[in-house]
Amino acid sequence: MRNWLLPENIQDILPPEAQRVEYLRARLLELFRVHGYLFVMPPMLEYVESLLTGTGEDLDLRTFKLVDQISGRMMGLRADITPQVARIDAHLLNRVGVARLSYCGSVLHTRARGQDSTREPVQIGAEIYGHAGIESDLEIQTLLFKALSACGRNDARIDIGHVAVFRSLCRHGKVEADLERRLLAALVSKDIPEVTELSASLDGRVGEALRLLPKLYGAHGVLADAKRYLPDLPEIHAALTDLERLTDGASYDVSIDLADLRGYRYHSGVVFSAYVPGRASAVALGGRYDEVGKAFGRARPATGFSMDLMDFASGVGGIQVRRGILSPLVDDGELRNLVDRLRAEGEIVIAELPGHEQANNELGCDRTLVLDSGVWHVRAIQ
Amino acid sequence: MRNWLLPENIQDILPPEAQRVEYLRARLLELFRVHGYLFVMPPMLEYVESLLTGTGEDLDLRTFKLVDQISGRMMGLRADITPQVARIDAHLLNRVGVARLSYCGSVLHTRARGQDSTREPVQIGAEIYGHAGIESDLEIQTLLFKALSACGRNDARIDIGHVAVFRSLCRHGKVEADLERRLLAALVSKDIPEVTELSASLDGRVGEALRLLPKLYGAHGVLADAKRYLPDLPEIHAALTDLERLTDGASYDVSIDLADLRGYRYHSGVVFSAYVPGRASAVALGGRYDEVGKAFGRARPATGFSMDLMDFASGVGGIQVRRGILSPLVDDGELRNLVDRLRAEGEIVIAELPGHEQANNELGCDRTLVLDSGVWHVRAIQ
Repeated sequence: MRNWLLPENIQDILPPEAQRVEYLRARLLELFRVHGYLFVMPPMLEYVESLLTGTGEDLDLRTFKLVDQISGRMMGLRADITPQVARIDAHLLNRVGVARLSYCGSVLHTRARGQDSTREPVQIGAEIYGHAGIESDLEIQTLLFKALSACGRNDARIDIGHVAVFRSLCRHGKVEADLERRLLAALVSKDIPEVTELSASLDGRVGEALRLLPKLYGAHGVLADAKRYLPDLPEIHAALTDLERLTDGASYDVSIDLADLRGYRYHSGVVFSAYVPGRASAVALGGRYDEVGKAFGRARPATGFSMDLMDFASGVGGIQVRRGILSPLVDDGELRNLVDRLRAEGEIVIAELPGHEQANNELGCDRTLVLDSGVWHVRAIQ
Repeated sequence: MRNWLLPENIQDILPPEAQRVEYLRARLLELFRVHGYLFVMPPMLEYVESLLTGTGEDLDLRTFKLVDQISGRMMGLRADITPQVARIDAHLLNRVGVARLSYCGSVLHTRARGQDSTREPVQIGAEIYGHAGIESDLEIQTLLFKALSACGRNDARIDIGHVAVFRSLCRHGKVEADLERRLLAALVSKDIPEVTELSASLDGRVGEALRLLPKLYGAHGVLADAKRYLPDLPEIHAALTDLERLTDGASYDVSIDLADLRGYRYHSGVVFSAYVPGRASAVALGGRYDEVGKAFGRARPATGFSMDLMDFASGVGGIQVRRGILSPLVDDGELRNLVDRLRAEGEIVIAELPGHEQANNELGCDRTLVLDSGVWHVRAIQ
């Protein structure tokens, strides 16, 4: 029996990949920290009532359930950390003003999102609670861009949308719930013929606007086009003004996408996704979800982003894992001082253990410590 | 319904406690890294066959089980990371020589160990595989001491024992399995009357030695006493020589405890526990368990330690969480440069968001940035 096989879409992360994930984790959490984001650690397990409150059916299906032997109640393994952080903001921190929070941890999914996806992503993210203005959206997007830069990707592009555009068109056009759902699905998959068909029966200006949405995509000029061609409804006007302020304030590459409605059901304002060259899917997703704390009895404005660190790490090049220095196992004060100094500088120094000299190459060292004229030196291994 | 209550012995870790846990995690993993320990990330979930192979009934009972919807097979949530790391050494790294590995992650327990214990400890540890000599025991104990020092506790004491002493006494005295179990329990709980009673029927020298074990505890002189009074069996002689080399090589406070037999069932040589003043229970446990890879078809010598980071963090004082600097939300290049520089130096700089000035005190800043004669300055908040 090969009893060391892992379940499908579950894997060990080995060196040097694990080291890279850990390096990125530390970089990102330090970045969040110096921006004033307080780190929180919600648990892996909660009662399902609390874990799935205010979340959709999709999350319920992705959540592993198990029985608590102590209470006999059903618990779930978290499949998303964001609702947990909303609970913490709503009930544990009790701030009147702004709370900036960050988190990082494993989540588990009953089924992988895609064939090559893991069922155990490492979710990392940052959130701002308690501020409804566009300034916090701009702060959070800037933080995301800085986070990607800190990981060596300063070539990221942030795509921005706003759920209020589609929402207000539907309200204004008195679109029924079922049709709204079908339109949403067609827009998300950029299925223009389907959007055309579904919108045919609608009020002329609303139908036209819905058919226009998938084309309102790109960099400069999109917002001007949107202002010119979309109906002049107050919500649409406010949404476009928000997007204008975000693009004006951005110190990074920004693109508008008014048909990006992923997460439409829980988002309430600006939504965004980050892309890096060479990868088809977004590396981070975020947006505003002002209703998130409501299920916990305290709705607070909220904006934030999250990403799968594992997935992101696999696509990040350029982070060199430094090779080590082999040190003989000699009891010598001078040697010990040198080794301590090198390690304090971040060098890997590996002590040679007796009896394994023939396998030293497995240690991956490119330098060694040698005694020359009474002084210890770092010397390249030939 | 208060749907935000958590299950018993499950908790959110909030700021600033979470920040302290994260800080210690980063310190320890960096320490392990520069000593040549490769970081690995085994999954939270595995098939029970693999997760519980070679482990005891105790771990089985503490492991949450759930069904994999994809394979229909039973999976377990890890309750201990050590066996996973042994599996990685045995089957994935395939080294001939020494492998140094480190890990850190949540584990879950069906029941807490004690009333105040968590069911979700954060286990952190380091292991050396492939080296049977005392040099690796010394390296791992030194690393543990350095780890505690790095967390501000350089007042730790390491208690060392050796399971071969008790084991060889039992073999030599032909102690039956059941009696051995009862003697073990009595020794672990230092129940001297019980040890006396249980050993009464045994061979004179073995019984005497067993009654002596709980007294062979302390610093200097214990090993000399052990050599003098314990039977001169080859395994006992070798064990005492090992302990002597460890105490001679230690650059930290060491104490001998020949009745410390926690983990006797899976340990095979030197065992140790670390204590810090002011805490009754050990903050870290470790030892040699050369048989650990056997269940996976590849027994390799192994020595290592692990600790509960959450538990340890709660007892570590002295780590100051620095307070932040409040920055006005002004679009000014000079201000931006100053903020970037301060953050690069590790300072927390929090941007003020409009409309929340009255709640600024919640942000916990003790300084602010002010423009004075055209230059931005850091100024203490009165």
